[in-house]
Amino acid sequence: MPESANEIVDRWLAALDSALRERNIDTALEIFEEDCYWRDFVSFTWNLKTLEGKEDIRRMLEAQLEHVQPCDWTRGEDATGDGEATEAWVTFETAQARGYAHLRLRNGRCWTLLTTMQELKGFEEKKGTNREQGVSHEIKKGRLSWLEKKNAREASLGYDEQPYCVIVGGGQGGIGLAARMRRLGVPTIVIEKNAKPGDSWRNRYKSLHLHDPVWYDHMPYLKFPEDWPVFASKDKVGDWLEHYTRIMELNYWSSTECTKATFDEVTQEWVVEVVREGQKVTLRPKQLIFALGVSGYPNTPTFDGAETFAGQQHHSSKHEGGGDWAGKKAVVIGSNNSAHDICADLWEHGAEVTMVQRSSTHIARSEALMDLALGDLYSERALANGVTTEKADLLFASLPYRILPAAQIPVFEKMAERDAEFYAQLTAVGFDLDFGTDGSGLFLKYLRRGSGYYIDVGASQLLIDGRVKVKSGQLARIDPHSVIMADGSELEADLIVYATGYGSMNGWLADLVSPEVANRVGRCWGYGSDTPKDPGPWEGELRNMWKPTNVDQLWIHGGNLHQSRHYSNYLALQIKARMEGLDTPVFELQESYLTR
Amino acid sequence: MPESANEIVDRWLAALDSALRERNIDTALEIFEEDCYWRDFVSFTWNLKTLEGKEDIRRMLEAQLEHVQPCDWTRGEDATGDGEATEAWVTFETAQARGYAHLRLRNGRCWTLLTTMQELKGFEEKKGTNREQGVSHEIKKGRLSWLEKKNAREASLGYDEQPYCVIVGGGQGGIGLAARMRRLGVPTIVIEKNAKPGDSWRNRYKSLHLHDPVWYDHMPYLKFPEDWPVFASKDKVGDWLEHYTRIMELNYWSSTECTKATFDEVTQEWVVEVVREGQKVTLRPKQLIFALGVSGYPNTPTFDGAETFAGQQHHSSKHEGGGDWAGKKAVVIGSNNSAHDICADLWEHGAEVTMVQRSSTHIARSEALMDLALGDLYSERALANGVTTEKADLLFASLPYRILPAAQIPVFEKMAERDAEFYAQLTAVGFDLDFGTDGSGLFLKYLRRGSGYYIDVGASQLLIDGRVKVKSGQLARIDPHSVIMADGSELEADLIVYATGYGSMNGWLADLVSPEVANRVGRCWGYGSDTPKDPGPWEGELRNMWKPTNVDQLWIHGGNLHQSRHYSNYLALQIKARMEGLDTPVFELQESYLTR
Repeated sequence: MPESANEIVDRWLAALDSALRERNIDTALEIFEEDCYWRDFVSFTWNLKTLEGKEDIRRMLEAQLEHVQPCDWTRGEDATGDGEATEAWVTFETAQARGYAHLRLRNGRCWTLLTTMQELKGFEEKKGTNREQGVSHEIKKGRLSWLEKKNAREASLGYDEQPYCVIVGGGQGGIGLAARMRRLGVPTIVIEKNAKPGDSWRNRYKSLHLHDPVWYDHMPYLKFPEDWPVFASKDKVGDWLEHYTRIMELNYWSSTECTKATFDEVTQEWVVEVVREGQKVTLRPKQLIFALGVSGYPNTPTFDGAETFAGQQHHSSKHEGGGDWAGKKAVVIGSNNSAHDICADLWEHGAEVTMVQRSSTHIARSEALMDLALGDLYSERALANGVTTEKADLLFASLPYRILPAAQIPVFEKMAERDAEFYAQLTAVGFDLDFGTDGSGLFLKYLRRGSGYYIDVGASQLLIDGRVKVKSGQLARIDPHSVIMADGSELEADLIVYATGYGSMNGWLADLVSPEVANRVGRCWGYGSDTPKDPGPWEGELRNMWKPTNVDQLWIHGGNLHQSRHYSNYLALQIKARMEGLDTPVFELQESYLTR
Repeated sequence: MPESANEIVDRWLAALDSALRERNIDTALEIFEEDCYWRDFVSFTWNLKTLEGKEDIRRMLEAQLEHVQPCDWTRGEDATGDGEATEAWVTFETAQARGYAHLRLRNGRCWTLLTTMQELKGFEEKKGTNREQGVSHEIKKGRLSWLEKKNAREASLGYDEQPYCVIVGGGQGGIGLAARMRRLGVPTIVIEKNAKPGDSWRNRYKSLHLHDPVWYDHMPYLKFPEDWPVFASKDKVGDWLEHYTRIMELNYWSSTECTKATFDEVTQEWVVEVVREGQKVTLRPKQLIFALGVSGYPNTPTFDGAETFAGQQHHSSKHEGGGDWAGKKAVVIGSNNSAHDICADLWEHGAEVTMVQRSSTHIARSEALMDLALGDLYSERALANGVTTEKADLLFASLPYRILPAAQIPVFEKMAERDAEFYAQLTAVGFDLDFGTDGSGLFLKYLRRGSGYYIDVGASQLLIDGRVKVKSGQLARIDPHSVIMADGSELEADLIVYATGYGSMNGWLADLVSPEVANRVGRCWGYGSDTPKDPGPWEGELRNMWKPTNVDQLWIHGGNLHQSRHYSNYLALQIKARMEGLDTPVFELQESYLTR
């Protein structure tokens, strides 16, 4: 009888365990394939790191093994697959932490291993069996109520008492991360320029909805109720974030702007100048986190003659939507998500709309994306199969970026086939399509460059029907009443919207700290795939995201709802460990190859 | 080999199924014990009803079987127990609905059966796989955003468009019920006199915490996060209710008082006069629900000379807590929950406090209650055993009130034994203890009379230590500076708090509708146990709660967080069925034996 999947995995884990306990790296490497990947989130490396091949793994183990002291590798539930390809969830421990891992074996040897830190021993979150009592049943004089304590904390933090951590940016990223910090007992203040949590959503154009489905979008700790729509509207998301912020009891400073942050070498802390509701306040946190979204400042290329334009013109981030555009002509420069949404919004409100497409765009229909690309991980079907949100996050991370394209290409081939007629119709109206340099589609475009795609939620049909016109090519100049294209054609315009994207994520670092510090941190996002807008060299993990940067005590948080939820856990654990003075030897801090 | 629990249950269900399909009541009754109980929530009776013994069951089946058409009785998961005593979860269907049941067999015949309606066919909640899309991916002109639709609905409902249902009272009960109504698409307005959801908690005395543990207290649909304390403070609960109300998108009219409700015989609807933020509004709902808590108006007995008292005096409901009572003397009349909490609060704030105990009190220590009485149903242990909140609610309901005391007596005997020293110490300081007439303890006191107990969260120790004094006996009169007891002793007082409970729940019915209607509805709460404050005759279910009353289109909702959560489902389904014009033949509408 052949070995069962469980037996195969148990034998492999036992071999790993004994080799690592004996610090016998050669023996450990014998149970890995030549073509192997070990991705680690914090548990072994105090870094986010993908080790590719045995030599990478050897180097990491040589550096970290004595410190990490891994043990207790245990299969978490029934393994799946057979002798040729086996998959399993695994728990393990290190000297400092408890971890959760995902393992893929091929013919009994490891192809991929994902190890993640889940909680620090001795610093577990107070939840479940470990939750607080809420009240002492021994009555004493001078007890403060929950409300009194909360009010006192809010009045004191940032004034009489300094937070350990300041998060600049109170959108979904800053909020979710702050919730994790609070659970871990890390005193944290979130700085947000808007008046209320959720305003960064509310302030966008009227028709905006989440383009990702509900199962992908949960915040940490408090899931959307079961009746949440698949695609929530921006105001509903905004309200949820506001309630979430209050429910999690975050120290959220709204109507507050960060004006300057400098590092005080003497005290080894940041000096963060903020203006809170008109009042200057100086904060002195040990750790400074920028969570200003996945992008930097709005990016508006300089077009000749733009200053002579007689109509309205603004960047997509300033486009409110709605209004009455009947009888007016609008030109939208750009062909990604925002451009499509804004074209549709303007068309809905009566405008004659032309989209100017300056480079090819990847279009993925929402329905196809949900079925083919996300359905196994984030859907009711996935939940019914036991794939919780937390497991889906780990499964998505379990394929390192080196091999992710190979897994994604067939998905998008299927999509091209399934929606062939749709794509033909788009091409027929002159729309320039792509599926990414290597055909790997949406997620890799997102990870490499954060742009170049539209998740179709209806606007493509407007283009196909000619209700919104598309014009491919480059701009020559802007005249008072029109956009002139390089081919000499003229697009009349009462309104120009520049859906031209955003600058590098560390633009604000240059302004708020200094250009030198921004350059020392280097570029954010992308992983060195050597594809358009993501130059090499190969790095294998997103640059500077959720992990130590080349500037001490400075961190970058961001990403979509899925990433913010998942990676905030690792970032919070890294911060907590530093606050508690634990040893956190970072394995191979990534070099900054690229400035901004 | 003896039959397995699964086989026993499957055989029983098959027998039930075939007998009921054949409308053969005699055959059906053969598989019940002589001593049998069938408790039904809505699914068979369109009522909440316990059928005791075969003759009750026969009468019900004769009346309802043709209408109900039950079928598809299916074991939901593995049954437990053995041939002597077997337990199982069961799903079933009726012509109109899907149901969930709990079954106990003894030697293969039914001892207890609980049948509950869970959802109406064709009117299922839009959740999970059935959730709304949130946005159409076909773009059309004139689309309204989620926010626009929400604002329009809020502006129109109650003015241009009448709600189907008005709920008077926006505490936890009204809020949870309204959430269910919203999920079922029943247009509903909640009327609340306070300025914000949750204020009914915020306005209570400072030290108030939930006396029931977190697992018992969830609202429908959105559970407290895992880090909620075991016992949340009143302000935290208040905030949660406020967020919950907004998240659930309820039509919640705060700062609104209901002044009058009359039934319009011509239109067959209620005419409900309310004052909303100073403006008179007339609502005309089909269904009127009172959700004003488990109690009626504050009840302050008339004590001779009270009007001559020179200090402060107020009912416990007006006691804010806090303040500086150093050097002052306080007398608290009463010895139940509020009295204990207020004594502790006053002692904490410096007062010299005496509790006046006028009748014996049941004391259950919180820790003992959690371990012995609730632990199997509402705890981390229960969750680890697969007993979800929803299952716990059904398990608690699965023992009809006739047999519940027999199940509870041993629990409280164990409690008396475990805390024997504690009880002896209380008795030693003159505190008059009881465990209920029949020793059945806290829950039955609560169900029978809603009073007569204290869940000890620390105040008992103050009594034991003499830090708070206890005086047993009746009051003779109140003098300007003291309370005079029947035995002639004098208790000096600067403050008297009347922790003397609340009147009958339908006191407000008399005022808001009419004394005649209040009397037609009759007394609320209690089940005719023929014990103090709950006179017979036996009724077997709580009077008028969550079920049809003797006044058409008028309903009473209330109870603690557990009951509000659980029973709101049945009340909402009854209302929804009426709105949709379904046939809802009520089996044996309960007579009103007792006026207010």
